Amino acid sequence: MKTWRDYVRRVVPYTPGEQPNQPGMIKLNTNENPYPPAPGVVKLAEHLETDRFRLYPDPTASVLTEALAEFYHIKQEQVFVGVGSDDVLAMAFQTFFNSDQPIFFPDVTYSFYPVWADAFRIPYETKALDDHFRIRKEDYYADNGGVVFPNPNAPTSVYEDLDFVEDIIKHNRDVLVIVDEAYIDFGGRSALELVEKYDNLLVVQTFSKSRSMAGMRIGYAIGNEELIKALNDFKYSFNSYTMNQTALILGAEAVKDRDYFNQCIEKIIRTRTWAAEELRALGFEFNEPRANFIFATHPKYPARELFEALRKENIYVRYFSLPRIDNYLRITVGTDSEMETLIHFLKDYVK
Amino acid sequence: MKTWRDYVRRVVPYTPGEQPNQPGMIKLNTNENPYPPAPGVVKLAEHLETDRFRLYPDPTASVLTEALAEFYHIKQEQVFVGVGSDDVLAMAFQTFFNSDQPIFFPDVTYSFYPVWADAFRIPYETKALDDHFRIRKEDYYADNGGVVFPNPNAPTSVYEDLDFVEDIIKHNRDVLVIVDEAYIDFGGRSALELVEKYDNLLVVQTFSKSRSMAGMRIGYAIGNEELIKALNDFKYSFNSYTMNQTALILGAEAVKDRDYFNQCIEKIIRTRTWAAEELRALGFEFNEPRANFIFATHPKYPARELFEALRKENIYVRYFSLPRIDNYLRITVGTDSEMETLIHFLKDYVK
Repeated sequence: MKTWRDYVRRVVPYTPGEQPNQPGMIKLNTNENPYPPAPGVVKLAEHLETDRFRLYPDPTASVLTEALAEFYHIKQEQVFVGVGSDDVLAMAFQTFFNSDQPIFFPDVTYSFYPVWADAFRIPYETKALDDHFRIRKEDYYADNGGVVFPNPNAPTSVYEDLDFVEDIIKHNRDVLVIVDEAYIDFGGRSALELVEKYDNLLVVQTFSKSRSMAGMRIGYAIGNEELIKALNDFKYSFNSYTMNQTALILGAEAVKDRDYFNQCIEKIIRTRTWAAEELRALGFEFNEPRANFIFATHPKYPARELFEALRKENIYVRYFSLPRIDNYLRITVGTDSEMETLIHFLKDYVK
Repeated sequence: MKTWRDYVRRVVPYTPGEQPNQPGMIKLNTNENPYPPAPGVVKLAEHLETDRFRLYPDPTASVLTEALAEFYHIKQEQVFVGVGSDDVLAMAFQTFFNSDQPIFFPDVTYSFYPVWADAFRIPYETKALDDHFRIRKEDYYADNGGVVFPNPNAPTSVYEDLDFVEDIIKHNRDVLVIVDEAYIDFGGRSALELVEKYDNLLVVQTFSKSRSMAGMRIGYAIGNEELIKALNDFKYSFNSYTMNQTALILGAEAVKDRDYFNQCIEKIIRTRTWAAEELRALGFEFNEPRANFIFATHPKYPARELFEALRKENIYVRYFSLPRIDNYLRITVGTDSEMETLIHFLKDYVK
């Protein structure tokens, strides 16, 4: 006899990234920002209008889309917001990737792309990065159902310049191209300046990294008004009220302080620069990091061994047991002090 | 030539419910709780750990599932949480409704069911309520791909007793039955006591009504551990971190104060009782309301006309321009004072 079990959706088993919470631990494993959110957010959080909690939030999230439009000097109608960029990307996949042709993305990239494609029954083909972990743009010129790639790429931290990105968009005018810029603020030039020029470009960013708000789950997409309307139409048909009151209010506040935002980014870039030098001096090899993490391998010490050794010291970095990258560590750029502890340990270990 | 437009997902156009925000307005249109969240929530909100905002939330949402498990005296592994019950229901549809047979739900019911079924390409058949807006349970005994219905039903406020609900579950042991109990706390007996007995039963509830937390977007499902695991497996494959820090922490706090919860419900039920009497005295007709709203029609005054007249007075109720119910108003039970204003106006109008 059949039971409900026969109709359960089969999914690729997925375990969320480790979120350890040890006292004194050094957490360099999920690319969080080591600095707190903007002072305005901290202050506003103390005076939340709790009576408003009983009311539904504004489904159009306008306080937040307005703040983002102002920050980027675009129209509010060009901004879509969601529960982290994962939600935004998943919505975009469902809204735009409905061709019978496969969508294209790199073989080494954000691990959720193939998972969403499977979940939404979207055909896909991965395109291998070259031996230096660079995207080969010509791979993306063939007929396809859409293109998505992160820039800088994850988990490689490799950035491609804007001409390179534009070439991919130009060669795909008949489908949607999503440029996933979760890490762009750490030193890259955003494709945002191309959204007026290309109506098939959707740029996705997040509050989780450069804005120190991973805990508030806020992501956004920017594109032409027609794209954003299509996203909203689909989103409203699912769940009109996804962004809660606190995410809307505190998110809008986080965008307002451009100085603090720039200061945090500068600090992280400075730390990344010296930490990269130290790691190179210890024999680690990696591409120039352009995100808030360094993706490094060592010719003598297996990554898994280093990962375990660091973990014993209460230093958490990320290790992926995946083809091509199973000898690499993804090390989030923390504070100077956190990176000093990491490097101090590695200096003893790698000698 | 094809463009990305040719591949945009077609959806039923949907406009989120009106969320007016007029000074002095009386808002009886979206079934929100007229009372603020529990005092513990208000207090805790003043002392949020804002430094934690920079960190990802716990993907297992364990502080919240633990609080709910304690409240309902069940295991934590029997609780799934999501971004409002809309998110929970949408996840459940996708996880469990994968048969080729149509799922069944009432013709007059929560308006999102057919929208999700369309969005997820789930075949469905609606079963007509009888002339008194009651579910006919025998309609649900035929072969199907799953069953979902609210109890009390929306927007009718009609409640069916637990034996009735159990009959539907019993006759559908081979598929999943979702009992959507968004309004059960306002005077019904929950199907929660049946989850140990039936492994095909999923009960869905929300913080948006009885817990005064619509603005925080928290919903949950309770069932046997195997059902909850299947939901989590699917959810993790989409977006591991949907519940933000504030929803987790404040949500857990909201569950702890059983006395406040009971007091608010008692007040709302008392208000509902006298408001219903007053409305009946004015000639309004309706089933016994068992949710935090009254679904009423008047033999002499068309609902749309009343809706417009009330709106001019800054009193917002809900009107649905839909088959069978286009001569009804859905009136949320507000505070005594709000209901007095409403009834005072209607006394003048309906004479």
